[in-house]
Amino acid sequence: MNANRIHNFNAGPAALPLAVLEEIRDSFLNFAGSGMSITEISHRSKWFDGAINDAVDRTKRLLKLSDKFHVLFLQGGASTQFCMIPMNFLHGDHSADYVNTGTWSTKALKEAQLLGKQVKIVASSEDKDFSYIPKDIKFSNDATYIHITSNNTIKGTQWASFPDTQGVPLIADMSSDIMSQPLNVEKFGLIYAGAQKNIGPAGVCMVIIRDDMLKLAPDTVPSMLKYTTFVSKNSMYNTPPCFAIYTLQLVMKWLEDTIGGLENMEKINREKAQLLYGVIDSSDFYRGTAELESRSMMNVTFRLPNEELEEAFIQEALDNDLGGLKGHRSVGGCRASIYNATTLEAVGALTDFMKEFERKKG
Amino acid sequence: MNANRIHNFNAGPAALPLAVLEEIRDSFLNFAGSGMSITEISHRSKWFDGAINDAVDRTKRLLKLSDKFHVLFLQGGASTQFCMIPMNFLHGDHSADYVNTGTWSTKALKEAQLLGKQVKIVASSEDKDFSYIPKDIKFSNDATYIHITSNNTIKGTQWASFPDTQGVPLIADMSSDIMSQPLNVEKFGLIYAGAQKNIGPAGVCMVIIRDDMLKLAPDTVPSMLKYTTFVSKNSMYNTPPCFAIYTLQLVMKWLEDTIGGLENMEKINREKAQLLYGVIDSSDFYRGTAELESRSMMNVTFRLPNEELEEAFIQEALDNDLGGLKGHRSVGGCRASIYNATTLEAVGALTDFMKEFERKKG
Repeated sequence: MNANRIHNFNAGPAALPLAVLEEIRDSFLNFAGSGMSITEISHRSKWFDGAINDAVDRTKRLLKLSDKFHVLFLQGGASTQFCMIPMNFLHGDHSADYVNTGTWSTKALKEAQLLGKQVKIVASSEDKDFSYIPKDIKFSNDATYIHITSNNTIKGTQWASFPDTQGVPLIADMSSDIMSQPLNVEKFGLIYAGAQKNIGPAGVCMVIIRDDMLKLAPDTVPSMLKYTTFVSKNSMYNTPPCFAIYTLQLVMKWLEDTIGGLENMEKINREKAQLLYGVIDSSDFYRGTAELESRSMMNVTFRLPNEELEEAFIQEALDNDLGGLKGHRSVGGCRASIYNATTLEAVGALTDFMKEFERKKG
Repeated sequence: MNANRIHNFNAGPAALPLAVLEEIRDSFLNFAGSGMSITEISHRSKWFDGAINDAVDRTKRLLKLSDKFHVLFLQGGASTQFCMIPMNFLHGDHSADYVNTGTWSTKALKEAQLLGKQVKIVASSEDKDFSYIPKDIKFSNDATYIHITSNNTIKGTQWASFPDTQGVPLIADMSSDIMSQPLNVEKFGLIYAGAQKNIGPAGVCMVIIRDDMLKLAPDTVPSMLKYTTFVSKNSMYNTPPCFAIYTLQLVMKWLEDTIGGLENMEKINREKAQLLYGVIDSSDFYRGTAELESRSMMNVTFRLPNEELEEAFIQEALDNDLGGLKGHRSVGGCRASIYNATTLEAVGALTDFMKEFERKKG
């Protein structure tokens, strides 16, 4: 690795493409010939306009968005979306359907309930410790929207395909798998994603909102919590998180120009996931925790025979420059997050280490 | 200037200390020996704990905060505080006093009104185009808090001293003058500041909240909009804006270790302001827009004899590597923002240019 860098399997904030980091570093004292750092330029300048507009344009091209979709860059992470969504879309006798597939889904629906909104949990995988994605869900006839979490970082599950919602707008938290593969956005009313896993650093949340959703918000929603505020101002109603948006722009550029788009990105991601799940499945030492057909292509969760071995595994991996392999503190075990910027080389180094560790300790 | 950098008089995002920028650049691929960029490390890691805890500790030392104050790093800028403050502190028959000293004060009180909260505008300088800070204000007896904007970037005014509020908690938007001079924090219930002027990059808002304010918030406030959420989690309820907090930490370190604290910072800031106002006051060509005793030490607003000359001034200044001198788009004219990181050398270069411009065009 360059500059004593390690292979980074963090769940988020997570690895960024090395070329992106190098470009930021090299231009950090003088952005685009402005004579100022990206952290010092005005958000009302031609330099920042160039960055944010390019980020929007590349997002639209990568996801093949039609004109009825708006791309926003907000603050507060996906967690702020948990309250913004019901505040904007649920009022009067409206109610929403939520599918509960783990910690983040649970948080999302609890925030809606906290606001006194009507929500219906139409499916849950809590009965099996959130190890699968529910199928054949019966949605309400009158839901204003249906909320799902497309990928569950903690339990390592992911929707393999999205449900037919009969025209009801689907809202998805895609924080941990956005831009990891092509996406048919048409059935989504809103998609949101904290950037710090697949598309940028912490501090910016990408929101893709369909035009027809905007009219639902009542006037009493605070300006900073209302989507229309940001749609009408190209995400610059107030000072946006400039550095995070700029970094996201560079990641979009890398996805489009270096990787060659989301079809190529998916191929690489599938190869990485197959390599890693292959080692797990060919072993009695490692055991995957998610049900086969619900497995995540992004977060590979697995256990070793006991916690002592897991601790040794995580520590010895780190000694071998393989970082971030500890499972979420709420569940323990091991987890390798293999987002877009994690290279096939890194996954190869991990699987080599896993085989060697098993040979020694298995 | 190094690396073809210009003198930066932007109103925000604004200049950062060169040493801070250089440290970020030099460690950008490998933060604190982690083998990862600051943008790639987990917010639950020892590395990030080191950064955020140091940022909190230095803030407490610089402002001499007693134990009853909490230092938080939130997202959404000062604009999100405009709604969080009434959401947390005003309910039932509570009402608050607001002093209106310009655009930002107006936005703050409008957000409270939008939420249907009771607010009373106890003083305003709108009668003279916000060119002064009101004096001898009569506050309500029963206000839950009193809200002020300590420095007004657009009109270039600043409170020279804070009013006696008879024990009612003072809440201040200090986005544009926090840490520019020592502050007696005791009478404040809450202080907030978007970082991008005096203390860091865009994307993080510093909130200093007194312990007794926390009990006011009702249970129905969304988690991400409730101060207690962040107090109990050291600002890490969800993924915080890591890069912006880290940069802020370095600015606090610069303030404490290089400048030597806020007493020294004030001396430098007063010297810069006196130099600049001195040129304005000794000339009939330049005219300051704020009333003398309400003048800001941070944002020096001035006019030239006509708009044509102002345009020429701004352009010619830029040709001489003096950037960001255009007044806010809502008022026109000229403005030099001389926050902490703007050096005396930069102000000297500006005043030299101003004298030469007057000699040629005056």
